[in-house]
Amino acid sequence: MSDDCVFCRIIAGELPAHLVLEDDRFVAFLDGRPLFPGHVLLVPREHVVTIMDAPRELLGPLAERTQDLARAVQDAMGSAGIFTAVNNVVSQSVPHLHVHVVPRNRKDGLRGFFWPRTKYASDEEAAEVAARIRTSRG
Amino acid sequence: MSDDCVFCRIIAGELPAHLVLEDDRFVAFLDGRPLFPGHVLLVPREHVVTIMDAPRELLGPLAERTQDLARAVQDAMGSAGIFTAVNNVVSQSVPHLHVHVVPRNRKDGLRGFFWPRTKYASDEEAAEVAARIRTSRG
Repeated sequence: MSDDCVFCRIIAGELPAHLVLEDDRFVAFLDGRPLFPGHVLLVPREHVVTIMDAPRELLGPLAERTQDLARAVQDAMGSAGIFTAVNNVVSQSVPHLHVHVVPRNRKDGLRGFFWPRTKYASDEEAAEVAARIRTSRG
Repeated sequence: MSDDCVFCRIIAGELPAHLVLEDDRFVAFLDGRPLFPGHVLLVPREHVVTIMDAPRELLGPLAERTQDLARAVQDAMGSAGIFTAVNNVVSQSVPHLHVHVVPRNRKDGLRGFFWPRTKYASDEEAAEVAARIRTSRG
């Protein structure tokens, strides 16, 4: 536990939150400033910062709880779809790994904002980028 | 395989793509219209539509490959952070499960767009929403 971490303090019961799931490894609660009502944050009890540095054995259970919550939020809120996302480092307001599970509906106003796409200047540039990722040691 | 699915056709080698990862269960390739260069899509070879309906046993390996790619993209592109996300149904342009792995940097222009937050009208409203999700059968 990190003493100055808001999510560790929620997990420890020191700060209030509207819990929606608790098990031996994870806690989930409402985001207090939701994209839409029913927006949930899934966090591991262990203080891990990003997907990149999460222990390998945490990943399967994390993905299973994400599926559980996606189904539960969709059912409870009657939403058409679900957005699941993790901000790692950049745009990560709390440096404790959290999966956003967000109910989505058509014409909910997010579409245009989400994907301001760009293009590769050429197919050669794309091939070069792909090769760089493929051969990265990570 | 679904004959009219663009991602199934990429997996089958019928459509071109800049591949960055291939194993027995997954393929990853560059998004042709990236948020930023190095934006990758991770897809299961099996034609699954959403996180909600993915077979349980696919989830752990999917999360592990997501971590592999997050590390590789961050390293290859030298990005400060990584955004990982799945659009399920709404904003899902191709109805074949795909995890977006996107390099992020500070002041890259996305911050303001991503999180147009709202608020719960009252703590009672939030408590009611949390209870609905908590008790959902999913």
